[in-house]
Amino acid sequence: MARIVMKFGGTSMAGIERIRHVAGLVRREAEAGNQVAVVVSAMAGETDRLVQLCREAASLYDPREYDVVVASGEQVTSGLLAITLQGMGLNARSYMGWQLPIRTSPAHSAALIDGIDVDVLERVFDGGGIAVIPGFQGVAADGSVATLGRGGSDTSAVALAAAMRADRCDIYTDVDGVYTTDPRIVPRARKLAAVTYEEMLELASVGAKVLQTRSVGLAMREKMPVTVLSSFEDKPGTMIVDDDRIEELDMERQLITGIAYDKNEARVTLTGLPDQPGAVAAIFGALAEANINVDMIVQSVPRAGEPSVLTFTVPTASLPQTTEVLGRIKSEVGFGEVLTDTNVVKVSAVGVGMRSNAGIAAQMFRALADRGINILAITTSEIKVSVLIAEEYTELAVRVLHTAYGLDADDDA
Amino acid sequence: MARIVMKFGGTSMAGIERIRHVAGLVRREAEAGNQVAVVVSAMAGETDRLVQLCREAASLYDPREYDVVVASGEQVTSGLLAITLQGMGLNARSYMGWQLPIRTSPAHSAALIDGIDVDVLERVFDGGGIAVIPGFQGVAADGSVATLGRGGSDTSAVALAAAMRADRCDIYTDVDGVYTTDPRIVPRARKLAAVTYEEMLELASVGAKVLQTRSVGLAMREKMPVTVLSSFEDKPGTMIVDDDRIEELDMERQLITGIAYDKNEARVTLTGLPDQPGAVAAIFGALAEANINVDMIVQSVPRAGEPSVLTFTVPTASLPQTTEVLGRIKSEVGFGEVLTDTNVVKVSAVGVGMRSNAGIAAQMFRALADRGINILAITTSEIKVSVLIAEEYTELAVRVLHTAYGLDADDDA
Repeated sequence: MARIVMKFGGTSMAGIERIRHVAGLVRREAEAGNQVAVVVSAMAGETDRLVQLCREAASLYDPREYDVVVASGEQVTSGLLAITLQGMGLNARSYMGWQLPIRTSPAHSAALIDGIDVDVLERVFDGGGIAVIPGFQGVAADGSVATLGRGGSDTSAVALAAAMRADRCDIYTDVDGVYTTDPRIVPRARKLAAVTYEEMLELASVGAKVLQTRSVGLAMREKMPVTVLSSFEDKPGTMIVDDDRIEELDMERQLITGIAYDKNEARVTLTGLPDQPGAVAAIFGALAEANINVDMIVQSVPRAGEPSVLTFTVPTASLPQTTEVLGRIKSEVGFGEVLTDTNVVKVSAVGVGMRSNAGIAAQMFRALADRGINILAITTSEIKVSVLIAEEYTELAVRVLHTAYGLDADDDA
Repeated sequence: MARIVMKFGGTSMAGIERIRHVAGLVRREAEAGNQVAVVVSAMAGETDRLVQLCREAASLYDPREYDVVVASGEQVTSGLLAITLQGMGLNARSYMGWQLPIRTSPAHSAALIDGIDVDVLERVFDGGGIAVIPGFQGVAADGSVATLGRGGSDTSAVALAAAMRADRCDIYTDVDGVYTTDPRIVPRARKLAAVTYEEMLELASVGAKVLQTRSVGLAMREKMPVTVLSSFEDKPGTMIVDDDRIEELDMERQLITGIAYDKNEARVTLTGLPDQPGAVAAIFGALAEANINVDMIVQSVPRAGEPSVLTFTVPTASLPQTTEVLGRIKSEVGFGEVLTDTNVVKVSAVGVGMRSNAGIAAQMFRALADRGINILAITTSEIKVSVLIAEEYTELAVRVLHTAYGLDADDDA
């Protein structure tokens, strides 16, 4: 007997037929003798519809009331799944975030989970029951409904699994796992049997949108094994685990686990930057104050006393705000032009194996150079090498690197 | 300054444009210096959609989970109206049933309101705020969401008005008041300036579906003045008040206030009923046990020892169950045939004025006889005379009685 959390996303809950299928998956786990808590998203499209209604109601809407509106989507699917499970003869009940409660910070529409009381759940399990819980929502200390931000149901599921000391957390979605790269670009991409939390964080943040990043970070801190799998096909998914379990779960691991890409980066170039102490600090200080996440940074090395060129990337969505901040500090800091370019892509090779292997980055630069792809910026972390290149080379670069790192599936796979 | 409850039905909340209009009506009351609590229904059609989802999920659905699903409709409109009011610069917030709380009985999907805590509302009013409250829902003692049954938002509004000792409760709907009869049948029907609670109960239960009957009964017990008016047109509605205020509010009252009709009655006739003590009691006892509401009853007077004929009406929806019950007790009680007829209509003349005036019933019978309309059954109460006639005479009978009792509007009205 295991204690598990099963989480189902919006496409898995999109309509009564899909919900019935989900109920069948829940039944299978319950009938295997497991203690099951189910976390559900709203029906696909429903949250978008509710957000749109809030936007139409007022351009600057109160996040507290926004939360009241959007939390209703998961409330509906929780009730419907409980009804469907009962219709199959199972002992199931829904529990809203305020009923458990799932306690959150007061940051409406972007709340953090402070804690989850599991007394109610323990009683449900003692009575042989199944608990259905809406994802994405909890209750703030003042008794108001608070939501966790888009995609928050993954975080709800992992937090619940940690609170109830579950053996595992299964995230059912419309993809069947995590791949070595985007299969639309590389048909020979392989599904990974397992990845580490850190790899998943890097893969998620650079474009493999399978799990909300926040939920992976939480799983890592709590050492909660998470499995990503499909609610549409009955086959094994990808386990996301701690470093020390990765070898046993995936014997065929390469040094590099996957190739990711992210088109949501914009390049900003500042010319004529004075060679003065504090100039760069003033720029990044002002951007940090405006909550703009700067990612890759490259500074040309000038001769002493001569102006230099500074290049960095920001999320494309933050670009208007970035140019606004830069315009404000331009005369004070004293730089020349502000050039921006959104036709860039960040391509990354990710893998815990590179920790113990030099030469991974060099292999990347050589493979790209062989195809004439110009590298605009580079960043590296312990388990990742990223390059910024022109967007038109995205597919070519991903394919070349996928092959170079030995990730292509065998023909007979 | 007055303290008021404003309630808006589903057509008034159907979409952001309508909600914006509602917000304007609320603003007008708030800017006049009134303390305002607003009770809202779900958007028109939304509750039907949610009920349908529950039905599709399982044929026998758990009312507790049904309540979780259907309560979401009012949650959405509450948040949206609060956002819209805030967008107009007003200090508005939503409070769900479990947040006030509105305490209910545990009878899910048909709960009764046990009480409403007004501490939160008093603080809102002290701070010059507007409270937006979803109708139709509250929280049971076990902490589960409970709904009041369809149309329950009217009851929520009246109960809230009573709890917060409001000066009045304004029910905004898609009709502009209560009429002397159905204007689709009688174009010269007049809107009533005022009706008494009792008249409204009789008018509502016989077809004038403006307010949920339960809410009128509650308003009567609490002596809460209720006004029915349109959220679509800016003109006075109909006040529903206590007997002792009716004269001052409507100087032009006739003896009869209105003519109502109800096609949802079915006639049942039992032949060959033995002239034995207890036979009739056995029949109505069995029907009462099955929760079937018997309305009009007529028994032919037999000669001593001879069998008689018993005729009564039941709601058309209860007819299958009625024939089932009668079939079960037929041999035991010993009657002949069971004849049923759904092509009947109950037409009623309603008015507190008839208490002090004999001859109202006689006037009705004569007016119908003059047109050759055969009366199948009669019931009277202190303020109502009803006749059962063939359904095909509905429009004719309503028109004839409307004229006979002097209810037709003047040509220049």
